[in-house]
Amino acid sequence: MRVAIVMGSTSDLSKVESAVDILKNYGVKVDVRCLSAHRAHEALSEFIDEANHNGTEVFIAAAGMAAALPGVVASQTVLPVIGVPIAGSQLDGMDALFSIVQMPPGIPVATVSINGSKNAAYLALQIMSVKHEDIKEKLWQHREEMKQAAEKANQEMIEKFN
Amino acid sequence: MRVAIVMGSTSDLSKVESAVDILKNYGVKVDVRCLSAHRAHEALSEFIDEANHNGTEVFIAAAGMAAALPGVVASQTVLPVIGVPIAGSQLDGMDALFSIVQMPPGIPVATVSINGSKNAAYLALQIMSVKHEDIKEKLWQHREEMKQAAEKANQEMIEKFN
Amino acid sequence: MRVAIVMGSTSDLSKVESAVDILKNYGVKVDVRCLSAHRAHEALSEFIDEANHNGTEVFIAAAGMAAALPGVVASQTVLPVIGVPIAGSQLDGMDALFSIVQMPPGIPVATVSINGSKNAAYLALQIMSVKHEDIKEKLWQHREEMKQAAEKANQEMIEKFN
Amino acid sequence: MRVAIVMGSTSDLSKVESAVDILKNYGVKVDVRCLSAHRAHEALSEFIDEANHNGTEVFIAAAGMAAALPGVVASQTVLPVIGVPIAGSQLDGMDALFSIVQMPPGIPVATVSINGSKNAAYLALQIMSVKHEDIKEKLWQHREEMKQAAEKANQEMIEKFN
Amino acid sequence: MRVAIVMGSTSDLSKVESAVDILKNYGVKVDVRCLSAHRAHEALSEFIDEANHNGTEVFIAAAGMAAALPGVVASQTVLPVIGVPIAGSQLDGMDALFSIVQMPPGIPVATVSINGSKNAAYLALQIMSVKHEDIKEKLWQHREEMKQAAEKANQEMIEKFN
Amino acid sequence: MRVAIVMGSTSDLSKVESAVDILKNYGVKVDVRCLSAHRAHEALSEFIDEANHNGTEVFIAAAGMAAALPGVVASQTVLPVIGVPIAGSQLDGMDALFSIVQMPPGIPVATVSINGSKNAAYLALQIMSVKHEDIKEKLWQHREEMKQAAEKANQEMIEKFN
Amino acid sequence: MRVAIVMGSTSDLSKVESAVDILKNYGVKVDVRCLSAHRAHEALSEFIDEANHNGTEVFIAAAGMAAALPGVVASQTVLPVIGVPIAGSQLDGMDALFSIVQMPPGIPVATVSINGSKNAAYLALQIMSVKHEDIKEKLWQHREEMKQAAEKANQEMIEKFN
Amino acid sequence: MRVAIVMGSTSDLSKVESAVDILKNYGVKVDVRCLSAHRAHEALSEFIDEANHNGTEVFIAAAGMAAALPGVVASQTVLPVIGVPIAGSQLDGMDALFSIVQMPPGIPVATVSINGSKNAAYLALQIMSVKHEDIKEKLWQHREEMKQAAEKANQEMIEKFN
Repeated sequence: MRVAIVMGSTSDLSKVESAVDILKNYGVKVDVRCLSAHRAHEALSEFIDEANHNGTEVFIAAAGMAAALPGVVASQTVLPVIGVPIAGSQLDGMDALFSIVQMPPGIPVATVSINGSKNAAYLALQIMSVKHEDIKEKLWQHREEMKQAAEKANQEMIEKFN
Repeated sequence: MRVAIVMGSTSDLSKVESAVDILKNYGVKVDVRCLSAHRAHEALSEFIDEANHNGTEVFIAAAGMAAALPGVVASQTVLPVIGVPIAGSQLDGMDALFSIVQMPPGIPVATVSINGSKNAAYLALQIMSVKHEDIKEKLWQHREEMKQAAEKANQEMIEKFN
Repeated sequence: MRVAIVMGSTSDLSKVESAVDILKNYGVKVDVRCLSAHRAHEALSEFIDEANHNGTEVFIAAAGMAAALPGVVASQTVLPVIGVPIAGSQLDGMDALFSIVQMPPGIPVATVSINGSKNAAYLALQIMSVKHEDIKEKLWQHREEMKQAAEKANQEMIEKFN
Repeated sequence: MRVAIVMGSTSDLSKVESAVDILKNYGVKVDVRCLSAHRAHEALSEFIDEANHNGTEVFIAAAGMAAALPGVVASQTVLPVIGVPIAGSQLDGMDALFSIVQMPPGIPVATVSINGSKNAAYLALQIMSVKHEDIKEKLWQHREEMKQAAEKANQEMIEKFN
Repeated sequence: MRVAIVMGSTSDLSKVESAVDILKNYGVKVDVRCLSAHRAHEALSEFIDEANHNGTEVFIAAAGMAAALPGVVASQTVLPVIGVPIAGSQLDGMDALFSIVQMPPGIPVATVSINGSKNAAYLALQIMSVKHEDIKEKLWQHREEMKQAAEKANQEMIEKFN
Repeated sequence: MRVAIVMGSTSDLSKVESAVDILKNYGVKVDVRCLSAHRAHEALSEFIDEANHNGTEVFIAAAGMAAALPGVVASQTVLPVIGVPIAGSQLDGMDALFSIVQMPPGIPVATVSINGSKNAAYLALQIMSVKHEDIKEKLWQHREEMKQAAEKANQEMIEKFN
Repeated sequence: MRVAIVMGSTSDLSKVESAVDILKNYGVKVDVRCLSAHRAHEALSEFIDEANHNGTEVFIAAAGMAAALPGVVASQTVLPVIGVPIAGSQLDGMDALFSIVQMPPGIPVATVSINGSKNAAYLALQIMSVKHEDIKEKLWQHREEMKQAAEKANQEMIEKFN
Repeated sequence: MRVAIVMGSTSDLSKVESAVDILKNYGVKVDVRCLSAHRAHEALSEFIDEANHNGTEVFIAAAGMAAALPGVVASQTVLPVIGVPIAGSQLDGMDALFSIVQMPPGIPVATVSINGSKNAAYLALQIMSVKHEDIKEKLWQHREEMKQAAEKANQEMIEKFN
């Protein structure tokens, strides 16, 4: 299992790191790159082309402002591309959200929430789990853990207020 | 290959049909349901549970306004869920977009553009192509066709203006 | 008199506490739960079902981002459900507001202002006062106190500036 | 059972009628008025005062643009006030939504969706059902009917597509 | 010359003070009140009525959130009413701006910028200058001073950069 | 009494006409000009200068899109300037509203609602009534008429529904 | 003088035609292409590269939705790139505006108004006039004509209303 | 080579300085002025007129709020005018963006991102490079440097994560 993560700028790093951690925890090989669609388009094309042939199964692309990166990646691959809008301007990520989600017919980008790199990782795992049954099991386990954490939080509320 | 499509209301039908057509063209078995998160939550839960066990590989959920449907589906499966915001109110789909894309950590929804059911279908195909190599080939073919259509459109512009 | 308060995440706690205080001051029994629509939907359904049969008269549901919680509660009860949009993301609660207020016909959510849990409490009291005449009197008293506080504030302004 | 419906302008009439119909179907006495907060504030105050003493249990107030009406009603009663933002300007009801939902602490307005007068009626019924058990039963029946209509719609989709 | 300034809440005080200072500098008698449209509507009506008969020439009304105050004042006087939207919520004054500026035909509110109480004062002076020629002269003098300050600022820029 | 009305483009004409009619009905001399801040700035300056010396008491400036006109007028006069944002683009007047209302300190524009030329006329009359007592009386009469029309509308609602 | 116009889709054609007409009227050679950043990125790169070497002086790029085209062109040339946001979705061009104007440092796009292809043509002419003095003269002539048209429009208003 | 930079207020200074630095690095003569469209329109007109005749090739105009400055400059020159929306109010630069980009036909402003003065400088250089070949070469060099910095950033990511 292999996921390619591309960010548009090193300033997006802190928001991407949690995705890397989650994926590695699931035993996924992760290739992380900083390749702006606007400043490094040739290196970006090479990297996409490489990923198209090295067994990569999903792309994650994170970018802020006029966030062309996820769409540009999507236009050069038929692998699923997950887009993460980064809140990196006065417009609080609304600009990046619109730039990523409003793709034309035929070239989809699977958009997650603003700064939502954790969910990008979980979505990548879900996508790979279609093929890899063991990931699916681990994802159900994770849901079970979330449920237990939710129950614990609920229990705390019950004790606190009642 | 099997995809489950759920819409929140029959008024979303016309926007969902193109997704059904595309998927069937690729030989995908499609289960279409109209199951509102708010008006049919039990039947919805049953359908999700069924899909979790009958070989369904991807969900597509389309809904307008306070579009809870995609998130509710996502909370009951670890299959990838694609959300389609429908423009069905005075707010032109902005309400549905925010309701679908801004999911909390751990429960992603792969959001596509407002009324973007075609892209939902292509994204579903891309996701299944991770497992099904033949789909991947067909998707590259589709890209080739899009490229040729684009070239033809470009040629027309050249002839028209120069 | 009994009110069920559900929040989607413990991070919403500080915004919910004032509602609990107000309701307890009026002698209302308050059941507080942390039950995400996305992470704890079964426990949530059980709690709603319980409340439907234990004399609960009003629900208050507070949630941020893709705030499905109030609508999901509303879909499983015919008790009045008050929704509180929480400002918990880059979109400052606009996402939660749209996700809560734009409900489809037949399943209303009584939406109050962003982070408006105090008003959720007062609205719950007003609703219960339809049945409980003593609450109505206390609410008129509270209005009288607000009026006096307003008069005092006004007096201070008069003294300060004139 | 008695509900007072106030609209800000006769141009809001078509959007209010469905609420009247629903309420009358449930055997509710409905008083309909057209009393602008800005053009008829004295008559409005008199009507609110009257309603405060004639057994009215809920207010519904519908208004567009700088929709002060629901808040002004709320400030002169402790009965629950349901606000319906009407899309009556270039801003498509966003102005009315903000003007109605963003009430200050102590004076809540139970806001429903833009043009959502049907839900205003159902919310009024839910509120009255806290006192009137028979309404609660009828609301559960209505939910059952909605569920059956939903099942029928779903069945049509199954037949259409599969 | 006499101006009535009403704010909706003492939390708006700091934003109103500059208006008071400017008006007093021009020799205007200023009556400052804190009278919420929602919490003190009777005292507000009395104050408006008083101002309608004591020689007040302009109203300034400042309010945040569902800012009904300026419109309510405007509905009870034919004196010009200046509305100041206050940024007092998660929506950064956008809610107050829409609540104040989008008045129905026949009841105008002269809206200034968000938190723009200085401009409210200057607008009040301009309005009074229609009658009071000496104010007009002072306003031209103020413009001359602004022009000189602008020239000085410009000179500083020239020196700094060239 | 004399009012100067400037529109930015003849396409704004239909929205300005009602203001002219109202003002003429009150016996006001109205000078109507079409003088864009961007296409006719010299003629605009001349007209403003003229108005500053010919007894004009109020300016009304209506413009759409990047609506600089009201602010440019305001910067060359100390007469009160009323700005009317015109909905003349894809942004439905939101662009014009922001361009007109968000003026810097010292140069206010009295902004009315989007396409709100009727209110511009009434605001102009209110401003002139500070000096002209007879206008004030007529404005109170107009309010009385509005009140009667409101009562009639209310009566129709009562007859229709009860 | 040579200008390269690229549109993202033939559906943008009607909005681009006026730019072609204006430029041809000024004797500019215009190359029109339909080359989507997402569907024809290789042909697009070739065209940009060609234009970089064939004497092209300005690019105009028009696109709707997630409008990556202008930014992608800008990233492959140092010629000035003018971006035209097209209103081609439910979001009325707001998505395209944000996608085009919010470019990262170092790769500017000169953005004009939504659907503003006429202004794109005039901006291209202004840019070329820095080198070509005769264009500058013609642009001043055009301004003179605009001024005369404005005067005529103004004269019509004077005659109509006074 | 000569560029005229105008800001609307000295509070915009810090955002303009980077543009000055970049331009001076390229050997451009820069004239910096602080000339508000609203507070210094005559001095502004004189400066524009001067620039029209002293060899200035591009204008950069930066302003916040109701940012009339870039459009006013554009209306008095046929030189290209670059507009920089400054985030100087509660509306985070959205007001300035709309006020600058939505210009009427015939008077374009080349708008860059909110607070995007660096890009204003690069756009000015690109425009001048149409005439000055040496600037074009330096801009390609700068792109090469950006590319190398991007490669280095990418290399750091590779080392950090792999």
